[in-house]
Amino acid sequence: MYEKELEYPVKTVRAGVWGVSGYTGREVFSLLLKHRGVRVTYVAANNTQGPLPEIFQEFLNRTTLVCRPFSVKKTAKRCDVVFLALPHTQSMAVVPKLLKAGLKVIDLSADYRLKSPEVYEQWYGHKHDDIRNLSKAVYGLPELFRQKIKGAVFVANPGCYPTAAVLGLAPLIATAKDILSIVVDAKSGVSGAGRKAAVEKLFGEVSENFKAYKVLSHQHAPEIEQYCSQLAGRETPIHFVAHLLPITRGILNTMYVHLKEGIALNQLYNLYKKFYKIEPFVRVHPLGSQPEVKSVANTNFCDIGLAVSPDKKMVVITSAIDNLVKGAAGQAVQNMNLMLGFNETEGLL
Amino acid sequence: MYEKELEYPVKTVRAGVWGVSGYTGREVFSLLLKHRGVRVTYVAANNTQGPLPEIFQEFLNRTTLVCRPFSVKKTAKRCDVVFLALPHTQSMAVVPKLLKAGLKVIDLSADYRLKSPEVYEQWYGHKHDDIRNLSKAVYGLPELFRQKIKGAVFVANPGCYPTAAVLGLAPLIATAKDILSIVVDAKSGVSGAGRKAAVEKLFGEVSENFKAYKVLSHQHAPEIEQYCSQLAGRETPIHFVAHLLPITRGILNTMYVHLKEGIALNQLYNLYKKFYKIEPFVRVHPLGSQPEVKSVANTNFCDIGLAVSPDKKMVVITSAIDNLVKGAAGQAVQNMNLMLGFNETEGLL
Amino acid sequence: MYEKELEYPVKTVRAGVWGVSGYTGREVFSLLLKHRGVRVTYVAANNTQGPLPEIFQEFLNRTTLVCRPFSVKKTAKRCDVVFLALPHTQSMAVVPKLLKAGLKVIDLSADYRLKSPEVYEQWYGHKHDDIRNLSKAVYGLPELFRQKIKGAVFVANPGCYPTAAVLGLAPLIATAKDILSIVVDAKSGVSGAGRKAAVEKLFGEVSENFKAYKVLSHQHAPEIEQYCSQLAGRETPIHFVAHLLPITRGILNTMYVHLKEGIALNQLYNLYKKFYKIEPFVRVHPLGSQPEVKSVANTNFCDIGLAVSPDKKMVVITSAIDNLVKGAAGQAVQNMNLMLGFNETEGLL
Amino acid sequence: MYEKELEYPVKTVRAGVWGVSGYTGREVFSLLLKHRGVRVTYVAANNTQGPLPEIFQEFLNRTTLVCRPFSVKKTAKRCDVVFLALPHTQSMAVVPKLLKAGLKVIDLSADYRLKSPEVYEQWYGHKHDDIRNLSKAVYGLPELFRQKIKGAVFVANPGCYPTAAVLGLAPLIATAKDILSIVVDAKSGVSGAGRKAAVEKLFGEVSENFKAYKVLSHQHAPEIEQYCSQLAGRETPIHFVAHLLPITRGILNTMYVHLKEGIALNQLYNLYKKFYKIEPFVRVHPLGSQPEVKSVANTNFCDIGLAVSPDKKMVVITSAIDNLVKGAAGQAVQNMNLMLGFNETEGLL
Repeated sequence: MYEKELEYPVKTVRAGVWGVSGYTGREVFSLLLKHRGVRVTYVAANNTQGPLPEIFQEFLNRTTLVCRPFSVKKTAKRCDVVFLALPHTQSMAVVPKLLKAGLKVIDLSADYRLKSPEVYEQWYGHKHDDIRNLSKAVYGLPELFRQKIKGAVFVANPGCYPTAAVLGLAPLIATAKDILSIVVDAKSGVSGAGRKAAVEKLFGEVSENFKAYKVLSHQHAPEIEQYCSQLAGRETPIHFVAHLLPITRGILNTMYVHLKEGIALNQLYNLYKKFYKIEPFVRVHPLGSQPEVKSVANTNFCDIGLAVSPDKKMVVITSAIDNLVKGAAGQAVQNMNLMLGFNETEGLL
Repeated sequence: MYEKELEYPVKTVRAGVWGVSGYTGREVFSLLLKHRGVRVTYVAANNTQGPLPEIFQEFLNRTTLVCRPFSVKKTAKRCDVVFLALPHTQSMAVVPKLLKAGLKVIDLSADYRLKSPEVYEQWYGHKHDDIRNLSKAVYGLPELFRQKIKGAVFVANPGCYPTAAVLGLAPLIATAKDILSIVVDAKSGVSGAGRKAAVEKLFGEVSENFKAYKVLSHQHAPEIEQYCSQLAGRETPIHFVAHLLPITRGILNTMYVHLKEGIALNQLYNLYKKFYKIEPFVRVHPLGSQPEVKSVANTNFCDIGLAVSPDKKMVVITSAIDNLVKGAAGQAVQNMNLMLGFNETEGLL
Repeated sequence: MYEKELEYPVKTVRAGVWGVSGYTGREVFSLLLKHRGVRVTYVAANNTQGPLPEIFQEFLNRTTLVCRPFSVKKTAKRCDVVFLALPHTQSMAVVPKLLKAGLKVIDLSADYRLKSPEVYEQWYGHKHDDIRNLSKAVYGLPELFRQKIKGAVFVANPGCYPTAAVLGLAPLIATAKDILSIVVDAKSGVSGAGRKAAVEKLFGEVSENFKAYKVLSHQHAPEIEQYCSQLAGRETPIHFVAHLLPITRGILNTMYVHLKEGIALNQLYNLYKKFYKIEPFVRVHPLGSQPEVKSVANTNFCDIGLAVSPDKKMVVITSAIDNLVKGAAGQAVQNMNLMLGFNETEGLL
Repeated sequence: MYEKELEYPVKTVRAGVWGVSGYTGREVFSLLLKHRGVRVTYVAANNTQGPLPEIFQEFLNRTTLVCRPFSVKKTAKRCDVVFLALPHTQSMAVVPKLLKAGLKVIDLSADYRLKSPEVYEQWYGHKHDDIRNLSKAVYGLPELFRQKIKGAVFVANPGCYPTAAVLGLAPLIATAKDILSIVVDAKSGVSGAGRKAAVEKLFGEVSENFKAYKVLSHQHAPEIEQYCSQLAGRETPIHFVAHLLPITRGILNTMYVHLKEGIALNQLYNLYKKFYKIEPFVRVHPLGSQPEVKSVANTNFCDIGLAVSPDKKMVVITSAIDNLVKGAAGQAVQNMNLMLGFNETEGLL
């Protein structure tokens, strides 16, 4: 009697994951395992090779894929779409080849997020090598650029902090004309810094600890500024401070928008509810409720909380995401769903 | 082109969850949200009422169900199957009524796990009130009792420690005739103790801490002994010590079986591989690899690792599960799948 | 040859601790155990009684004191000085009696920190019952009020967030005349909320989580405003948002002071170095270095980090303390040292 | 009036710390800062140089020492005693020179703990280069070898697991004549593996995780066996399994001694109380109470809990220490106190 419901759809799209041995690459792979229209056919990494279950025992009995060194040729042969979970500067070395080979590409690095190659060089310390595709890349924030993503062949997946910041600020910034200052006090779990061994990411250093880092000098600030400026229709400087939370996954941004005239709390709430009315992955919390990192962990949701000072001039917006999901792999899958015509939420709910 | 694959099956079975405001009840609800054949139609709790997203903000925009006080009548009217995530002694007060109302019942409490009402009373400090159904209850460990579960109307879902212990010990105990002693050194995350407020479960007490508790006097010991004795075909005493890990979810049992004659490691490995050959949720690790709690977290897997001392007489078996999934809610859904004729892994992979 | 150095000074001052079963009371007791001039002669708590090592096993073999119900009479008989680690509203019920009995009193509750009884009532929801002593209480922040504390009989020990906030803001606020807005984005470990059982403080809720709470409505905001206004010589509104960190002890405040004219980073640094030149417990970090919670855990230090935006108008000050030490018990002992003529750092380094 | 009590003794002994940039070296340095008879005059490390507060910001304003590359000459010139917190095999390369230079040496590596060079080579994979001093080294477990340590010039500081295991087993093993098997199920915080960067020690790998490692093949097993055999007066095999706890500091060993005849719980308790009667750092818990890692964290205590099965044949002993204190740096300072004639507890209470 239930048999009909258990028919699984055939997994027809073939996907590859470059950088599968890192936290982001693993998350992409893990999400695709549950996606009913996609089959992972290729996994690769630079320094780690071997059967995937030997790299991550969680995949024991779940895949027979073997992680190999990067190969554009093999990727082109075996895949329709490829996810690049690489350190910045490494993506732009291969994107042109992968695109040329006819693949759809979703790049999770920072290489194609900033429109200006000069700003890229300033913040990432490396001249941009692929200006041609830089101008073609579609910024993969579906809530702002859904239509463009649907038609895209190449998507630059947003940074984790920018995803939480831009989604949290967008409705207000697109509307308010009297902004005096914007502070983004951002806190992230340690997986945001990747899986490469480093003393400052050791359990013994992070546990029972908390600190600010790259104060007013984080490379995600210009990414946030770029899209906030675009939304506002004018230069919109952001004061951005990052902090390291003793958790594995999750970001919470607390954002302070100082307004000259101010806004009533109800007005603010309605603005946000309307802005995100049809969004499957943005949840505006009821007034009085504040998002928690744990409630969005392992999900593709971005939760938003709102408050205003008694004089209505200081707006406090909190936004929470899982940095590995909505802040990286989940958003990448969401983008793939849009690019390939799947239901936008497939594999993500 | 992908549309066909996105058709979701109709959720035709109606399920209720009693005790949804606790960790186990929440996990059952959360798993059923992803189950393609089941629709949760009723949720209830004793001390906490209101819309489910107000109790757990993770369910914001995902359900409109409202948590109400327990009602057998409403459950019978709205559900085909009901999960009881209640403290022990509370289940046996309602199971007879729910069964009488024609519901299929999966009880996650300890009330129907021990065959002997005397042993129950000794360990749980309460006379058993429902001896009739006690004799009818099927112990819901699919790896040992799959056929019985398939035909069952009422299942007693195993305890978390016993699931990990019995699955880890079963192949050896069912075979070895020369056991001198069995030690189960068990470690569990704190969610195993439930969501009720108590000083000893506060973050400030548990974090950066570790301790043994109920040393040689834990109520799960007789449950383990009962099924080990059944497997061995004779009285099989277990020395069981529980420990509290500073993690939320997960159990790792390290088990020491002292043999008179001994067993070679390869022989042991083959024994386990054969015993669990067709099991979708038991993964015997390759020799040299040891299971980790994190690799089974949020999954229904039970991972098993094997080692033997040089003289072959001390066998060390490690088994890891997520106490809330394979140790509770996931196994309950697995049992439901068997009882209702779903694919056994539906909603669990 | 070393014998002389091992002579311990006689512990001549007798101290009592009310509320010893909570986190703050325990910390006071623990610090006094190492203080070479003080002997704890009396411990009491409201709901928990018995030998101290039975309440906290860390004191096994270290004390024979027994925790009893509160008694002004016994305290007066056995003590020279008493620490009150009580919930707010409970302190003001006993302070008059303890002072009348001739004791020196250090109150760690919030009852005597706000100068205005009206403000107290507004934020703590209770009419102030002891206005007479409210006006006499000396605010126990030694870096600002050292001389007053030296002569005090009764000290109101500052709140944890206010200690970190006021120390972090003081040098700038006492100087800058062009402040446009002040944001205090505060993050605290969970011990700040006390040791009383509550679901939201359970390990399973706090671990791997992070959230804002009491956004723009925390009762420590008026305390910070009161002393900042005093330093500035005019009304100084603070926008204060508290967050809960998944750590046991520690606070880090990130503070954003928006200036009209701005200040150069070096000028800011010199201002802070000068302001805290002689302070044994305030450490201004070298430019480029940011304080970490772990570096001040279990110490009485307040560490401060400084940064300024390129246009010099947004000053970012971070301050870190151990909420139980400099934010409570350590500062209380520091105050006691001043009140009794001990070296200010005795028992704290 | 209190001035006399505040006179600090002159710090006359000069100490050096090699390997100060690791967790153990840092802990030695930190403890010596509080020791009233010792002044640290030299710190060195292999790969990390510079002012100590730049390596560990917790020492800001607390020391002006600069960490330099290892130098026997400088150590000899500036120190009376030197602590070696080095990886194994590195100690034996320098110990002969340091001893020859007339220094008292406390080696915290594993190089001089095993009496047999063959056993050393078997477990540490390196031929022993300093057999001469190997035979002279005194094993620095004061509870067993206090008199020898008092007269020693060179002490091999015990391993962390062996300290907890041997102290927990000693009274029973020295007495019982009918032992059938001994299991040591050991759990340690991650600082035990040092501060060197490695993926498996990253926060993202350790947090919310737990696993066994080096099952029946840990290099501390022969160290435990050596001293247990010595205590028992015969070969005493140990089945040792190590586990990694998601905490920074702390070890808890749960030990199962299977006896042929058995022992009554009270008899066991009296045996332990008597054995450790005069020990300042061993605390035998009252029956029914179990030690917790958190209660010994940052202390030099070893806490012991006792239980026996109903048939009296399975004895369960739990022992808890801070692996960096009693398991390393604290015990090293305790040994130094004995070697130099200080009060044994100086700097440790």
